[in-house]
Amino acid sequence: LTDNKNKFSVKEFIHQSMAIIIEDAVKKATDVREKVCEWRSPDQLKELLDLELRDGGESDSKILQRCRDAIRYSVKTTHPRFFNQLYAGMEPYSMVASFIAEALKPSLYTYEIAPVFTLIEDAVLRKMMELIGWEEGGDGIFNAGGSMSNMYAMNLARYNHSPDIKEFGLSAAPRLVMFTSQECHYSVSKAAALLGIGTKNVYVVPSDKRGKMILSALENKIKAAKSEGAFPFMVNATAGTTVLGAFDPIEEIADICEKHNLWLHVDACWGGAALMSKKHKHLLKGIHRANSVAWNPHKMLMACLQCCAFLVRDKTQDKFYDISYDTGDKSLQCSRKADAFKFWLMWKALGSIARHYAYFMPEFSNVCFWYIPPSLKNLPDGPELYEKLHTVAPVIKERMMKTGSMMVGYQPHGDKPNFFRMIVISPQVSKQDMDFVLDEIHRLGKDL
Amino acid sequence: LTDNKNKFSVKEFIHQSMAIIIEDAVKKATDVREKVCEWRSPDQLKELLDLELRDGGESDSKILQRCRDAIRYSVKTTHPRFFNQLYAGMEPYSMVASFIAEALKPSLYTYEIAPVFTLIEDAVLRKMMELIGWEEGGDGIFNAGGSMSNMYAMNLARYNHSPDIKEFGLSAAPRLVMFTSQECHYSVSKAAALLGIGTKNVYVVPSDKRGKMILSALENKIKAAKSEGAFPFMVNATAGTTVLGAFDPIEEIADICEKHNLWLHVDACWGGAALMSKKHKHLLKGIHRANSVAWNPHKMLMACLQCCAFLVRDKTQDKFYDISYDTGDKSLQCSRKADAFKFWLMWKALGSIARHYAYFMPEFSNVCFWYIPPSLKNLPDGPELYEKLHTVAPVIKERMMKTGSMMVGYQPHGDKPNFFRMIVISPQVSKQDMDFVLDEIHRLGKDL
Ligand SMILES: Cc1ncc(COP(=O)(O)O)c(C=O)c1O
Ligand SMILES: Cc1ncc(COP(=O)(O)O)c(C=O)c1O
Repeated sequence: LTDNKNKFSVKEFIHQSMAIIIEDAVKKATDVREKVCEWRSPDQLKELLDLELRDGGESDSKILQRCRDAIRYSVKTTHPRFFNQLYAGMEPYSMVASFIAEALKPSLYTYEIAPVFTLIEDAVLRKMMELIGWEEGGDGIFNAGGSMSNMYAMNLARYNHSPDIKEFGLSAAPRLVMFTSQECHYSVSKAAALLGIGTKNVYVVPSDKRGKMILSALENKIKAAKSEGAFPFMVNATAGTTVLGAFDPIEEIADICEKHNLWLHVDACWGGAALMSKKHKHLLKGIHRANSVAWNPHKMLMACLQCCAFLVRDKTQDKFYDISYDTGDKSLQCSRKADAFKFWLMWKALGSIARHYAYFMPEFSNVCFWYIPPSLKNLPDGPELYEKLHTVAPVIKERMMKTGSMMVGYQPHGDKPNFFRMIVISPQVSKQDMDFVLDEIHRLGKDL
Repeated sequence: LTDNKNKFSVKEFIHQSMAIIIEDAVKKATDVREKVCEWRSPDQLKELLDLELRDGGESDSKILQRCRDAIRYSVKTTHPRFFNQLYAGMEPYSMVASFIAEALKPSLYTYEIAPVFTLIEDAVLRKMMELIGWEEGGDGIFNAGGSMSNMYAMNLARYNHSPDIKEFGLSAAPRLVMFTSQECHYSVSKAAALLGIGTKNVYVVPSDKRGKMILSALENKIKAAKSEGAFPFMVNATAGTTVLGAFDPIEEIADICEKHNLWLHVDACWGGAALMSKKHKHLLKGIHRANSVAWNPHKMLMACLQCCAFLVRDKTQDKFYDISYDTGDKSLQCSRKADAFKFWLMWKALGSIARHYAYFMPEFSNVCFWYIPPSLKNLPDGPELYEKLHTVAPVIKERMMKTGSMMVGYQPHGDKPNFFRMIVISPQVSKQDMDFVLDEIHRLGKDL
């Protein structure tokens, strides 16, 4: 089917594609003078890319062109002006590590199959547990996302409360309920649906204006659940919430968990990085008392996507968690990638990476703000302003995408109208870059 | 902390590491004259690799040496004599695709963030659904493993049966039971534990000698479950079992599912590839009647690890599955990688890849055999032979690992003593390679 005359040698193909990757996907993608994205609508892009899969194969030069095009029309998440997500930037060591892992295709079933990466994962997990402050160690696993880590935590907490559920299921079990703040990540609710806990059995605790769980409200919810005859089994505390970057008061939540004998999970997917900073680790005070922790080095620490650890203090929860090097049994995944290697190589190269965290404002690096166009400047605070403000960010965002100059996300939140959420991760981001963002938003929105 | 004088420019570091990756992780790793693995015990390897993470950073030349070492002591799953797992071989197009994705770090939340890869995933899923034979299309998602796909299937099947469970959990729900063969992948049981279904509510249907589900036994189990007052909701059929490579009779199982109104999921993680072969697709006859399918192109089709699709026939099961391009809502994962791109680029380059499947023996490419050393040749078939045979494969495997000449797995199965399971995937594997395996096993085990 394939016209072999149009094929290079494998060596030649790889060399040529590597040159394209370095030039287009690394150098150009991270060049501040280039665009963050070259916006096309789905219909336009479908036509440009000729996506359909046919019976025949294509020449290698055609394939190289396809690589160039895929890169060209992709959003450059590594571009210095990408502030849209909870990850950003190009970190060369972890990128190289991920290339090595892609080329070698290890899968972390057993030491026999992945000797190097099994030991590296173990070393990285140990270091993370040391930073958490678990003096007697613990166990853990790298997996395909913080959402999975939260799911693992809920599963283990449930197992800890009612081990029989594993075999007999929930249908004969009492109604288990858990607690989390209104600001928590939505993966908690998704996991509750999946695990058969039920989304209504996730009791949502209000947060204060800053976004932190209100302790008295947590106590009240626990009491209310008990009085309904339900069985509380777990609290999820968030260290670094997705929208506001707030830290729940872990120490005080740990006290409440102790009193009521509840599993404490800390979702530190976003905020875990602060543990590496002497100045900021107080934000997670009390985390050593958690039963489990989720922490994604691919976010604030810039490890290549994905790099997500789930950590558990007690080694003997379940046979999911035996301590041998054969990790297959403790994972829900069967094939599983060597993601820890990215964090390991990066750490070896940079040390404990304390140079980060310039941009904790006010607490962490989520910078949430409204842009108020001149026409609204004189409106008093109130429903009319809010209603008008709500429409501003979406229009600016659309113009921003079409210009391709930068990417910053927006969203509403509670009763707050749409605001920008700018995530500042890379230590290379300068005051000029920050000024650029504000100037550009003004340029794009001043007529609104 | 880091000694910056010992750091190259980013460009220089990436260039030098790329050269190492191409030379060591691609060329040498796939060179038949090189070893498949350079075995070290965990203790030896820990010392060689100096795993500990310290506060200071290291020079770039040290980091490059670390890359070389990580590659050197890793098992070469892409080596022509790696027959140990359900994946193998180096496929250059999908490798290049995965490098591009690692460099760009797309995460498939929305079209806005990952325009190219969202459309590519959509195109690949459509093609896979076409091969399955769903004339009206359907929906799907690439995710972090066939184990997750099976879990998705069980979740959707349950939702289909009792939608209230999503909100209210299982504690008030009737006892739901599902059916799968004794030869199915263990992820089904893990998912049952996780989902709160309970491992005991997975009713295990016996398989015949070839490894295929026995239809009358399935009927009996369904009837038995009903008479116990349980609620059957799903059958998992396996197309290509993990150990024996057997295909459950899908068409007949679909009849039974229809009769009892059960969700039919086909775990075609391993055997789905046969759908691409005119000659072999009859093995999956009836798969178009499945409600959902799991299929891993990273296995038989050699796409770079991981590349796993979950497909569902009906688009409107749940709001998990809306048909817009913003896939965030239908995924349990939040950040999610662009794995479909690997399969897409490979397909574009090679066409429908019909050149595969030389090694279907007797049905699929799992070649299971005993090596009987000369000392046991004259023993009659019976318990004594079996007992002795059981100890042969582990010793040969240990010697094989220490020699590093090849890798073939072994395992017991039911009442069968340990046997080798050789997985033949790459179309480049020749008769000589097969002879080599047999000669080498004989060389390593003839004194036993
Ligand atoms: C607080 C928090 N937890 C969990 C997650 C989920 O992480 P992942 O995208 O790796 O699933 C996120 C993602 O943004 C998050 O902000
Ligand atoms: C039949 C079958 N289903 C599912 C899986 C799980 O796939 P994964 O390793 O991608 O989780 C396997 C893995 O070998 C398998 O053989």
